[in-house]
Amino acid sequence: MDMPTHHEPVPEGGIEFATSPDEYHHWKLAIDGNIAWLTLDVDEDHIIGEGYALKLNSYDLGVDIELHDAVQRLRFEHPAVGCVVVQSGKERVFCAGANIRMLGRATHGHKVNFCKFTNETRNSIENATSASGQVYMCAVKGSCAGGGYELALACDEILLADDGASNVSLPELPLLAVLPGTGGLTRLVDKRKVRRDRADFFCTTEEGVRGKRAAEWKLVDQVVPLSGFDDTVRKRAAEVAASHDDKRAAAGIEMPPVARSFGDDVIEYTHVRVEFDRTLACATITIKAPAEDVPTNPTDMLAQGANFWPLAVMRDLDDAILHLRFNEESTGTWLFRTQGDVAQVLCADAALHANAAHWFVRETLLFSERVLKRLDVSARSLIAAIGPGSCFAGTLFEIALAADQSYMLLGQFEDDDTPAAEIALSPLNFGHYTMVSGISRLQGRFLDDADTIGALQGRNEERLDAESADEAGLVTFIPDDIDWEDELRMAVEARASFSPDALTGMEANLRFPGPETMESKIFSRLSAWQNWIFQRPNAVGEQGALVLYGTGQRPKYQKKRV
Amino acid sequence: MDMPTHHEPVPEGGIEFATSPDEYHHWKLAIDGNIAWLTLDVDEDHIIGEGYALKLNSYDLGVDIELHDAVQRLRFEHPAVGCVVVQSGKERVFCAGANIRMLGRATHGHKVNFCKFTNETRNSIENATSASGQVYMCAVKGSCAGGGYELALACDEILLADDGASNVSLPELPLLAVLPGTGGLTRLVDKRKVRRDRADFFCTTEEGVRGKRAAEWKLVDQVVPLSGFDDTVRKRAAEVAASHDDKRAAAGIEMPPVARSFGDDVIEYTHVRVEFDRTLACATITIKAPAEDVPTNPTDMLAQGANFWPLAVMRDLDDAILHLRFNEESTGTWLFRTQGDVAQVLCADAALHANAAHWFVRETLLFSERVLKRLDVSARSLIAAIGPGSCFAGTLFEIALAADQSYMLLGQFEDDDTPAAEIALSPLNFGHYTMVSGISRLQGRFLDDADTIGALQGRNEERLDAESADEAGLVTFIPDDIDWEDELRMAVEARASFSPDALTGMEANLRFPGPETMESKIFSRLSAWQNWIFQRPNAVGEQGALVLYGTGQRPKYQKKRV
Repeated sequence: MDMPTHHEPVPEGGIEFATSPDEYHHWKLAIDGNIAWLTLDVDEDHIIGEGYALKLNSYDLGVDIELHDAVQRLRFEHPAVGCVVVQSGKERVFCAGANIRMLGRATHGHKVNFCKFTNETRNSIENATSASGQVYMCAVKGSCAGGGYELALACDEILLADDGASNVSLPELPLLAVLPGTGGLTRLVDKRKVRRDRADFFCTTEEGVRGKRAAEWKLVDQVVPLSGFDDTVRKRAAEVAASHDDKRAAAGIEMPPVARSFGDDVIEYTHVRVEFDRTLACATITIKAPAEDVPTNPTDMLAQGANFWPLAVMRDLDDAILHLRFNEESTGTWLFRTQGDVAQVLCADAALHANAAHWFVRETLLFSERVLKRLDVSARSLIAAIGPGSCFAGTLFEIALAADQSYMLLGQFEDDDTPAAEIALSPLNFGHYTMVSGISRLQGRFLDDADTIGALQGRNEERLDAESADEAGLVTFIPDDIDWEDELRMAVEARASFSPDALTGMEANLRFPGPETMESKIFSRLSAWQNWIFQRPNAVGEQGALVLYGTGQRPKYQKKRV
Repeated sequence: MDMPTHHEPVPEGGIEFATSPDEYHHWKLAIDGNIAWLTLDVDEDHIIGEGYALKLNSYDLGVDIELHDAVQRLRFEHPAVGCVVVQSGKERVFCAGANIRMLGRATHGHKVNFCKFTNETRNSIENATSASGQVYMCAVKGSCAGGGYELALACDEILLADDGASNVSLPELPLLAVLPGTGGLTRLVDKRKVRRDRADFFCTTEEGVRGKRAAEWKLVDQVVPLSGFDDTVRKRAAEVAASHDDKRAAAGIEMPPVARSFGDDVIEYTHVRVEFDRTLACATITIKAPAEDVPTNPTDMLAQGANFWPLAVMRDLDDAILHLRFNEESTGTWLFRTQGDVAQVLCADAALHANAAHWFVRETLLFSERVLKRLDVSARSLIAAIGPGSCFAGTLFEIALAADQSYMLLGQFEDDDTPAAEIALSPLNFGHYTMVSGISRLQGRFLDDADTIGALQGRNEERLDAESADEAGLVTFIPDDIDWEDELRMAVEARASFSPDALTGMEANLRFPGPETMESKIFSRLSAWQNWIFQRPNAVGEQGALVLYGTGQRPKYQKKRV
C-alpha cells in the first residue's frame, strides 16, 4: 500500500477516536488567555451504540473520546493555558456519570475496555496538571454523581456550589451493585486522603454529601455560596493559571488527524503499519524510523509541528493501539517490528534529550510516555521481533522492553545482505518513560538491581548485537536463522492457543514488578475488582442491579459473601 | 451459655480448622534439634468434599489446614527450630499443586476462600522466616508443579535435585486457563526477581524448567546432583539453623485446641462470643478483656502458656474468623463489641510492649498481627460498636481501626449506670500491627499525616470519651442514646441490602490506602485477577479448561481479549 495522504474514517461499525473541537457533540472548549473553559453539555441523542439516551449529562465512550481529544489538544495547541476549568453546561446537573442503560446493555468486554480508556483519560488529566502545569479545576454546580464525581476527583481542585442542592456522590454500590471503578475509590483515600471510614459511608450513601460536610470530609476543596460561585471560580482559575507561568509557551502547534488508510487486513499510517494474520489472531505492528534527519533545535522542531517524527510516530501508534483495542478484540497478539536506521532513532532521542526543558519536547516526551503506558495496560500479548533492518533503539527499544517476550535474530539470514540486527539504549531509557507503577521499564526488568542498570547506563548508544544483548539481559531469546521463523511462529501460536482471560491476568501481574502508585493501584486493584464485579450475577444477571436499573424492579441479590 | 470447657467439633457439614500433628493425614512433622522436617505425603483418599482423589501429592483445603497448623505450632511449640525443611514423602513427585478436580467441582466462593487461606498460610511461612528466624527451605525432588511450586516460592531457599526429571513449573495457564494465583506470579518477579520475560515464558510452558536453567533463571537457588542431594540439604539446613541462634529459645509452650462450644445461633469461646442475627445477616463478635491481671514478666507469661490472655484471645478470634469465613458465608456483617476493663487491656499491652524482645511476647505480637491481617482481607463488612462497658483500647482498638465504620455512644444510656464508653491508644497501635500493605492502621487512617499521628502518640493511654475520640478522628460517628440503636441498625440493614460482591470490592479498595507490598499485591492485583478468571467461561464454563481437565476433551476458548 502507498503512504496514506489523509485520515480515512474507520470502517463501518468501528469506533473512531479522532475528533476535534469543531466536531464535538458533547463538550465546548473555549480559550480565554491562559484559562480554558471545558464545558460538558451532552447531546443526549448522539450516542455510540443504541438503546439509550445520555440524560442528565451522563456519558458513554463517545463523550469520553471528545474529552480525551480536548485534554491532548490543550497541551499541544494551547500551551499558554495554565488552568482548565471543567464545568457543566446544564442547569442543576453537573454530570450523572457513565450512562447506566449503556452499561446495562454493553458486553463485558466493552465495559472493561471503556473503563480502561476513561481511566487513561483521567490519568492524563492528572499528568497535565503535575507535569505540564496545566492545572485542572472542577467547578461543580448541581448534582455530581458517580463517574461525574470521578471526573472531578481527577482534577486538582474541586469547588462545590453551596445552594442546598449541589452535591457529590458515588452511588454505584447502593444503586447499581458495581464499584466507582474509574479511579473513584482509590482517589478518595489515596489522593484526597478522605478518611477511609468516611469514604466507606460516602460510597454506601445514594444521596451523597453536600455543603459544609463535603469540605470537612475533604470530598471537595471549597464550598462556595451560589451567589459568588462564578466569580470565585474565575478568580481562582486566574490565580492558578498565573502560578504556572514558568511552564508556559505563547503559541502551540496544530494537531490535524493522523493520516491513515485501511486495506485488506492492513492499516497504513505514515510511520506505522499494522498487518493482520487472522489465523494466528496476530497483528504485526511495524514502526518506522525517521526517513530523514530529525531537527535538533526547538525552532525547527516546532516548524515541523505534528510532523516532528518523535511526536508523529507516537500519534500513529496511539491511534493504532486504540483501534486495535476496541475494533479488533479477537486479535490477541501484537507482534512488534521496527524498520530503519538505528542511528536516526538515536539522533532523534539525542535531540529530545538535549532539549528536554523546551515545552514542545517536554510534551512530546510526556505524550510518548502515555502511549507506552497504554501498551503496558493493553490486554494483549506483546512480542517483539528484532530482525535485520530493525531499529529497536532508545525510545523504540521501550517497545521491546514493554513486550512480554522478545526475540532477536542471532546473525543474518542466509542469502541476505542486510546486516545483523543491533539494538541500543539511549538516555531516554533511563527514567524518561515510566510505567504506571512509577519506575522505568529497565527498572522493572532488573528489579532492585541498580548495578546492572548503572552498567547499562555506561553503555548508552552502544550498538549491541544479539549475543551482547542477550548477555546484557535485554532480550529474551536469540534464535539463529535456522530456528528464527519456527520459534517466532511457535510463540505466536502458543498465545493463540491459550485462554485469552488467563493471558490478560498473567500479563497484568508480570508486567509490573516492584512498587505501586495511585495510577497502578487504579489499574490493578480497583479495575481488577471492578472487572470481577462486572460479571457477577448480582450486577449483570437477569435480576442484577445494572440490568434492572430504571425498570422499577428491584434487584435480587445472592447473599453469600465471596 | 456457660464458659466452654473443651473444644467442641464443628457441627456436621462445617469445616474444622483445629488439628494437631497426631491427627495429620497428609503431613509429617519431625523435630531434630534445631531443624524441623515437614514432609508432604498426601493420603489421597482423605479429602474435604467429594468426587476427587488427591493424587500426586496434590492438595485441597484439608491438606492446607494441616500445613497452617504446623507453621503456627512450630513458632510456639518449637522455638528452638531455626530451619524448617519442606520436602515430599513420595517418590518422583514433590507436589502437583491444588487438586484440579477439586477446583473444577468447587463453587466460586470456595475457590476464592480456599486461595485466600492458602495465601495467608504462605505469607505466614515468610513471616516466620523474616520475623522469627525460623527459616523455611524447600528440598525439591521430583516434579514440583503449580501450587507445589508456589509453596516452594514461599520458602526462603529452594534446592532442586538435578536428576533429569525433577523440575519446577507453573502450568496453570496453559493447562487450566487460570493463574498461579497463590502468590506465584508475584513471588516470581517481586521476590525472586526472575526477569519478567522469562517469567512469562516459564508460566506459558506446561513442562516447566529443570536443571541448570532453573538456577540461571533464579527459579531455584541451587541445583544439586541427586547423589549428593540429601547430604546437601542436611548440611545447608544445619547452616541455616545455626545462623539464627539469636532468635531461639530452648523450650516452647503447648498449644491445645481452643475451648469452644456451639449453641443455637451462638458460639462461645473463652474470650470471644459470636451471636448470629440471621435476619440481618450479621454476627456480633464480642471480645472480652482479661478477667484478672495479666502477668508482667516473661516467666509468668510462659507459665500461662496458651492461656496467656493476649495470645488466648487472638487464638479464639482467629478460630472464629476462619469458621465464619468458611461455614457462615451468608453472614455478611461482623459487628464487633468489646466487654471489660480498659485498664486491664492497657496493662496487658504495656506488659507486651515492655517485653517485646522476649521470644514468647514477640510470637504473641506477631500472631496478633496475623489475626488482625485476616480481618482486613476478610470479605465481610466490619462495624465496631463502642458502647458503655466496652474496652476498645490498644490492641483491641485495632479492631475498631480495622472496621469499615465505627460507632461510639455519646454519653450514657438512660437509666443505666454503666459509665460512658472510653477508648485509648497504646504503644502497640503505633507500628506493632501492620496491615498487609506494610503500614499501621493508624497510618492508613491518617495517610501521610505524620503530625496527626505524632499528636496521637503523645496521648498514649489517655482515656478518650466519644467527643474527644471524634475530634481526634478515631471513630466514625458518635450518636447519642436516642439515635444509637437506630443508627447501628440502619448501618447493619444497609449492608444487608447491598450486593455482597460490590461490598467486597469496595472494602478491598478502601481498606488499604497508601503503599503496597508483595503481600498486598498478592491479595489485590493477583487475587482479584484470579477471582475474575475463576468466573470466566474459558475456565469454568461447560467447555472451560478447569471443568474439562482430565476428561480427554479439549477446552474451547472464546477468543476475544478482555
